[in-house]
Amino acid sequence: MASVLILMGSTSDWPVMQHAASMLEDLGVQWEARVVSAHRTPDLLEKTMREAEQGDIKVIIAGAGGAAHLPGMLAAYTWLPVFGVPVQSKHLKGMDSLLSIVQMPKGVAVGTLAIGEAGAANAGLLAAQVLATQQPEIAEKVKAFRATQRDKVLSNSSLELPK
Amino acid sequence: MASVLILMGSTSDWPVMQHAASMLEDLGVQWEARVVSAHRTPDLLEKTMREAEQGDIKVIIAGAGGAAHLPGMLAAYTWLPVFGVPVQSKHLKGMDSLLSIVQMPKGVAVGTLAIGEAGAANAGLLAAQVLATQQPEIAEKVKAFRATQRDKVLSNSSLELPK
Amino acid sequence: MASVLILMGSTSDWPVMQHAASMLEDLGVQWEARVVSAHRTPDLLEKTMREAEQGDIKVIIAGAGGAAHLPGMLAAYTWLPVFGVPVQSKHLKGMDSLLSIVQMPKGVAVGTLAIGEAGAANAGLLAAQVLATQQPEIAEKVKAFRATQRDKVLSNSSLELPK
Amino acid sequence: MASVLILMGSTSDWPVMQHAASMLEDLGVQWEARVVSAHRTPDLLEKTMREAEQGDIKVIIAGAGGAAHLPGMLAAYTWLPVFGVPVQSKHLKGMDSLLSIVQMPKGVAVGTLAIGEAGAANAGLLAAQVLATQQPEIAEKVKAFRATQRDKVLSNSSLELPK
Amino acid sequence: MASVLILMGSTSDWPVMQHAASMLEDLGVQWEARVVSAHRTPDLLEKTMREAEQGDIKVIIAGAGGAAHLPGMLAAYTWLPVFGVPVQSKHLKGMDSLLSIVQMPKGVAVGTLAIGEAGAANAGLLAAQVLATQQPEIAEKVKAFRATQRDKVLSNSSLELPK
Amino acid sequence: MASVLILMGSTSDWPVMQHAASMLEDLGVQWEARVVSAHRTPDLLEKTMREAEQGDIKVIIAGAGGAAHLPGMLAAYTWLPVFGVPVQSKHLKGMDSLLSIVQMPKGVAVGTLAIGEAGAANAGLLAAQVLATQQPEIAEKVKAFRATQRDKVLSNSSLELPK
Amino acid sequence: MASVLILMGSTSDWPVMQHAASMLEDLGVQWEARVVSAHRTPDLLEKTMREAEQGDIKVIIAGAGGAAHLPGMLAAYTWLPVFGVPVQSKHLKGMDSLLSIVQMPKGVAVGTLAIGEAGAANAGLLAAQVLATQQPEIAEKVKAFRATQRDKVLSNSSLELPK
Amino acid sequence: MASVLILMGSTSDWPVMQHAASMLEDLGVQWEARVVSAHRTPDLLEKTMREAEQGDIKVIIAGAGGAAHLPGMLAAYTWLPVFGVPVQSKHLKGMDSLLSIVQMPKGVAVGTLAIGEAGAANAGLLAAQVLATQQPEIAEKVKAFRATQRDKVLSNSSLELPK
Repeated sequence: MASVLILMGSTSDWPVMQHAASMLEDLGVQWEARVVSAHRTPDLLEKTMREAEQGDIKVIIAGAGGAAHLPGMLAAYTWLPVFGVPVQSKHLKGMDSLLSIVQMPKGVAVGTLAIGEAGAANAGLLAAQVLATQQPEIAEKVKAFRATQRDKVLSNSSLELPK
Repeated sequence: MASVLILMGSTSDWPVMQHAASMLEDLGVQWEARVVSAHRTPDLLEKTMREAEQGDIKVIIAGAGGAAHLPGMLAAYTWLPVFGVPVQSKHLKGMDSLLSIVQMPKGVAVGTLAIGEAGAANAGLLAAQVLATQQPEIAEKVKAFRATQRDKVLSNSSLELPK
Repeated sequence: MASVLILMGSTSDWPVMQHAASMLEDLGVQWEARVVSAHRTPDLLEKTMREAEQGDIKVIIAGAGGAAHLPGMLAAYTWLPVFGVPVQSKHLKGMDSLLSIVQMPKGVAVGTLAIGEAGAANAGLLAAQVLATQQPEIAEKVKAFRATQRDKVLSNSSLELPK
Repeated sequence: MASVLILMGSTSDWPVMQHAASMLEDLGVQWEARVVSAHRTPDLLEKTMREAEQGDIKVIIAGAGGAAHLPGMLAAYTWLPVFGVPVQSKHLKGMDSLLSIVQMPKGVAVGTLAIGEAGAANAGLLAAQVLATQQPEIAEKVKAFRATQRDKVLSNSSLELPK
Repeated sequence: MASVLILMGSTSDWPVMQHAASMLEDLGVQWEARVVSAHRTPDLLEKTMREAEQGDIKVIIAGAGGAAHLPGMLAAYTWLPVFGVPVQSKHLKGMDSLLSIVQMPKGVAVGTLAIGEAGAANAGLLAAQVLATQQPEIAEKVKAFRATQRDKVLSNSSLELPK
Repeated sequence: MASVLILMGSTSDWPVMQHAASMLEDLGVQWEARVVSAHRTPDLLEKTMREAEQGDIKVIIAGAGGAAHLPGMLAAYTWLPVFGVPVQSKHLKGMDSLLSIVQMPKGVAVGTLAIGEAGAANAGLLAAQVLATQQPEIAEKVKAFRATQRDKVLSNSSLELPK
Repeated sequence: MASVLILMGSTSDWPVMQHAASMLEDLGVQWEARVVSAHRTPDLLEKTMREAEQGDIKVIIAGAGGAAHLPGMLAAYTWLPVFGVPVQSKHLKGMDSLLSIVQMPKGVAVGTLAIGEAGAANAGLLAAQVLATQQPEIAEKVKAFRATQRDKVLSNSSLELPK
Repeated sequence: MASVLILMGSTSDWPVMQHAASMLEDLGVQWEARVVSAHRTPDLLEKTMREAEQGDIKVIIAGAGGAAHLPGMLAAYTWLPVFGVPVQSKHLKGMDSLLSIVQMPKGVAVGTLAIGEAGAANAGLLAAQVLATQQPEIAEKVKAFRATQRDKVLSNSSLELPK
């Protein structure tokens, strides 16, 4: 009964993408994660999106690095909103991933988050915010998460110079 | 009765941001556009987000250029999903706008689109896709828009070398 | 009877991509050009590659700009060699196109040429060089083209300071 | 009785920002450091600036990384001079932080220093220089600091090739 | 009786730097502008700074493009606060100017503003804010300027789609 | 009887370039690797290319880092197709290598692959694809390699959150 | 009797490179300019350098754009000092030219100047400075040129705000 | 009796700059190295250049990182040729150093080498090449060094795949 589907091209992206799953978990949203590669299993893209549309999935999260085609190709196959996470690449530090995901042409959109773990966590958060527009209990969870973050900042006041 | 609120820091961003409005219009989504500046009217940010949450607004679209703080600050004030459009800057061509919008820290998310007009149009499309997860008639409009795009590609086959 | 297939996502890429066709024409290589969009007609990618493999096509040339997914996705669907041309993008001048095309993951390769018209012409030249490894008459044409270029340099010696 | 207020979004920025505090300490300037987050405690920004203006604070120093909104948002809320320190980000090495801080629009200014520790130290130095325009004893301390730096360069002349 | 000295390497920088002067004018601050080149008149740097320190000058504003050494070299010669404006360069659009000005080593600080006209205007504004810490009437002018900016945003609400 | 010649400027490039050799080995293509430096043995470039053309070599693969001139200079001396691999450089991470290899002028083409090991492996793959256009048994090997890759993705489904 | 040889890959580089010639002319240095292309006439590189070494040439100036191999390849063929001028490229504004020229490996050096016309003029100036180390009359001309530059700065003091 | 003067802003640059000294040593050129800081000892710049001009110094080599002003400021004070070495900076990897050194305005030239150790070694080599234009014995040493490099490439042919 997952409402968010997390996709990535390889299990090696999971250490980054699991931050999306953790965030959804924390916000009480059901998720499912799967490996689908734009380049190695292109024939699965359409099928995966058809199943998602026909099931309970409301939001797609896709992570990819380098010439990161996965989020954009998924977006080409579905009318569900797709959020993309640029995974840090070995040499260009994710700048290639970011541009490959965000610079989509008019007509096929990917909502892109920050490079790496923070971006993955925020993809989960943004997916929850989308669901929250219809499910008040998730909106409450998002607000509670924000309040916790705020409290952490407020309680964290030890800023002394080391002697 | 708008369900998408388009915000920008200055009327000079409107030639870009109107592409978000046009796209929403084409997809049958009600929108409202307003000028709110993160730097010149910071006190309006919270108020604007409170009103949006209490009204019918489901998605925020925000465009900004340079040290583009508007989308991120709006996201800091609301649990509604925020989509950011990097407006091309005079000197760095929008690379500064893009990084300022997309590189948000964990805990406050902005779904970022491409630099400029294409990104603005896609922000409208993505907002419609979010709404489509609950309103089948918008999903139909998105699918029809896609089909039209597909048809345009198919009918466009004149590629001859100039003599 | 074309042996090189030139693909692009939109007729608006033709002013750049026609330089590939011109070069092939000059080198006596039959070509065909078609519009196929990774994002707007994703279902045509596989079909187009199947037909190419079953016909006389030996080399694919693909041009794309921005989040330029076309060359990489074609490469994912075929075992024919694919050469990619980064078309200049409006805001980032083709740096996004270049990185999206060249930074492919291990296992799916795109031979990438320079940004813009020079890159398109060179994609045609490189395709001819591939064919030349089996067809000596094309090798002769490539050598003749090179000799012409060399002669142009040699005959071009007027470098005087304007008075 | 602090005259310089050092702000940052998280205690994790303190290892960088403490170099501002150390420099102020060395130059005999009273400082105070606090955690305020543009994104997690946006409602504290205005309050913090009002208190600073009404107290003895003459200069604000703010450090932030990634989509570094803190310095610019503080500047939006106060007429006190704000100096921004781009904290190194994990993936883009502080280039995102730098552009997000320095590329402010006309009308709201942030005097930006170098990325990282050197920039933090120089933010402290620049704040002291501002105070020095009214307090000759601080001007003397700045001059003495410069003289010490000069002497270090002069006394450091051992440049021999390792055998 | 100027309290802000605006310096630039060439009269060709004046179309940019005059925005600093205009802003100071608007905020009731006396200014003086002069051409001094780090590379063509290096011997004038120290003399210019000595005179500034001994006169009424409280803040130095320096604009430069390319390998923009002027702001940093002035800062090396004075304890007065120096604000640097990266002037747009012909080929790299001011990215070289920005890095050359902002990336100062620990011990010599330049508060850097945005590239180009907006940065020049903000250098004037920031200089006024420095003066405002001692002269309440300038603080009032800065506040009034901010209020005017705010009013402009509020009154500017015409955002209609062209028919 | 090698049909692919792998060249590099120094044995220090071999840890990267051996991935081209491994890929060719896996695809049943005979290869030979040699050190030739554009800058240190420029007189060998032409000779090496003449021998390659007169022997069985069908494709040249060249790896280089920094001001990476080797692939382009080889291409200047031969009508055989040349594929270039940007080797990661120490300071700029291969961005310099990439631009030096890919931005060739019209008339001399280098098909450029990704930076580093993935690019080297793909250069081997692309060379095999070129050969496959004439040798069906290599085409079969490429297809089999793709199928193996596909299977690896499909069998790799363990994506669980760590407890 | 030229002592400086100016080389470029195409007459289209002359509008930039003629600034080297003009500067040499102004400083009383004999020059000669010729078109030699690293990519289109690679066999001329060595011959050109041999003739230069055996004649009166003391300094080589080479301009190139894009994957700018000319200066580095000339340096590989001669022990004469080589100065490189990055010519602005169409898409990447000369950043590719700069990195391709300056990032030479240990053992073959190119002294690189700024992108474009200023860099070309400075290549002429630097060549004259090299000659000046042996010819006092050129040293005097360089000093006189500097004095003229200084005077221009000093006499240029009209910096008034437009009314 | 040194004929090359190596300057740097801090002893911390010596691990990079000593590669210039080593190269000069290998080529039989006398050198001297000293610490002079553009920012911390600006008053020493002119004096150091005057002494160099009046002594036996023929070439200046200067290394600097970040907002690397040293090479350009030395060039502003002397008619001797100045070669600049961009020292790797902590955050931006020397890209800031490179642009600050190479992008000099027309009229004051710095011949710039590669970032880091290779660039430092090449600054020594280029200085020797300048001296070689008048001292045949240094020209012989440069040729011998090149021959040794060539031999190293030729004797280095072990490129086998690890089992």
